Amino acid sequence: MDIKAYLIERQRLLDEALEEYLPPADRYPVSIHEAMRYTVLNGGKRLRPIITMAAAEACGGKAQSVLPTACAIELIHTYSLIHDDLPPLDNDDYRRGKPSCHVAFGEAIAILTGDALLPLAFSLIAENLGTDGIDEARVIRVIKEVSNAIGSLGMVGGQVVDLETTPETVTPPLIQYIHTHKTGLLFRVATRCGAILVGVNEEELKSLTLYGENLGFAFQIVDDLLDFKTGKGKGGASYPGLFGIMTSKDKANSLLEQAISFLEGFGEKALPLESIARFIGDYMSSATNEA
Amino acid sequence: MDIKAYLIERQRLLDEALEEYLPPADRYPVSIHEAMRYTVLNGGKRLRPIITMAAAEACGGKAQSVLPTACAIELIHTYSLIHDDLPPLDNDDYRRGKPSCHVAFGEAIAILTGDALLPLAFSLIAENLGTDGIDEARVIRVIKEVSNAIGSLGMVGGQVVDLETTPETVTPPLIQYIHTHKTGLLFRVATRCGAILVGVNEEELKSLTLYGENLGFAFQIVDDLLDFKTGKGKGGASYPGLFGIMTSKDKANSLLEQAISFLEGFGEKALPLESIARFIGDYMSSATNEA
Repeated sequence: MDIKAYLIERQRLLDEALEEYLPPADRYPVSIHEAMRYTVLNGGKRLRPIITMAAAEACGGKAQSVLPTACAIELIHTYSLIHDDLPPLDNDDYRRGKPSCHVAFGEAIAILTGDALLPLAFSLIAENLGTDGIDEARVIRVIKEVSNAIGSLGMVGGQVVDLETTPETVTPPLIQYIHTHKTGLLFRVATRCGAILVGVNEEELKSLTLYGENLGFAFQIVDDLLDFKTGKGKGGASYPGLFGIMTSKDKANSLLEQAISFLEGFGEKALPLESIARFIGDYMSSATNEA
Repeated sequence: MDIKAYLIERQRLLDEALEEYLPPADRYPVSIHEAMRYTVLNGGKRLRPIITMAAAEACGGKAQSVLPTACAIELIHTYSLIHDDLPPLDNDDYRRGKPSCHVAFGEAIAILTGDALLPLAFSLIAENLGTDGIDEARVIRVIKEVSNAIGSLGMVGGQVVDLETTPETVTPPLIQYIHTHKTGLLFRVATRCGAILVGVNEEELKSLTLYGENLGFAFQIVDDLLDFKTGKGKGGASYPGLFGIMTSKDKANSLLEQAISFLEGFGEKALPLESIARFIGDYMSSATNEA
């Protein structure tokens, strides 16, 4: 399949939906709505929500049926970036080449922008009813899964450990914990949500979960590799910092192969998920070889 | 009824439930779990969740049936206090006589503690199924209502306007907007949730909503009056700052009377809600007269 055309089409679909779900920029109070739109509608890759839609397709559902939940996953990702970029946390002044939210709107509005995106995400999931047999019980299961994935035992917990880990104190298990929690669990739940909503048996869900976990871990290593290359990384407290560039690339490739292996039983319907994994591998190769 | 005994009993019930719902303090990563427990288990009045339970009782349900959602309302309230206290926002170093979260644990952990309490709240609502006919459809309705009440068009929006309003720019409509959004909507939804979960017709729900709105507005004026008295208030940007102490007290009393008037059709079952309103009035009188 033409994965690049597929990704572009899905990005467009998601951008249009996000644009519609976010309150307009002139809605009172204006500053927060400007900040929400500035941070969400910023040309992101939309990888996580694309995976949610592709997981629904792998289970025989329609991508469109899980669009609100896919957008919710992207809003949660955006909220986490806004808060992570804040001065007391990672103190990043740039995000995708533009001033980060707190630089553009001030720290107070940046904190509140994250605080506004999170409930908007839950309201989108709660509205995701109707097609493909999506009923209240499935929606509630998704709400439980998402809240567990992003709380103190999930994504936020990963951020805490990242914050408290320095190049001097880092160990392989700590890196593993940070990656699994800070990035991996959102990929994992992005995959599971799409499947759960359109209907999936527990056996298939287990396979898709393993796909999501391996893909998420691989993605984080790739992300670390790019940061490492541009000098933006934390030095020792990253996968390539700890294991070196070559071992990291091998690890990412083997995780992606593993991810793909869990799609075996799904046949053609899982071609998008498979192509996404291969795309990440190709992207890593081209991005890390060009230096 | 003995409202003081009632409130103490309910506080105990809520404290025990919150204690159980929060991860233990020694659960990894420890700092965030210590901070979550430090901020939530701090001897708060638990007024909002008590109203959720009392609203369930007013509709003929059991208080115990809505306990997880009541706790969720309290977690949301706590998260909003933690973020409001942060230096870029209200910069309050003390909360209920103790160092606020960012003073005790640092700004980064304080931001993340709020970020962890919010999804925990949604997961508690999602788990609130079973007794008193509480089904998935009611739970989803509550999730929608809560997320709308606390987002950029709700509580967070009120915080934004509060942040951008100074004693020089404040006007009566701005004060009204801030109070309604920053405080009122959480009281309103706390009331509605309890009713919706145990089952309520739209007519009764309308009355309880008006109870919650009036009570919330009154509570905010009382809160402003206490801040005004202790010099903690923002001067002009508060109800007593704008209208004076006497007018504010009259306004609060008349709002409380109005709140009580909407309970007429409920009979004895609404006695707790009525007594809570009277209790707030008595509390205001004694607290503002003692100076």
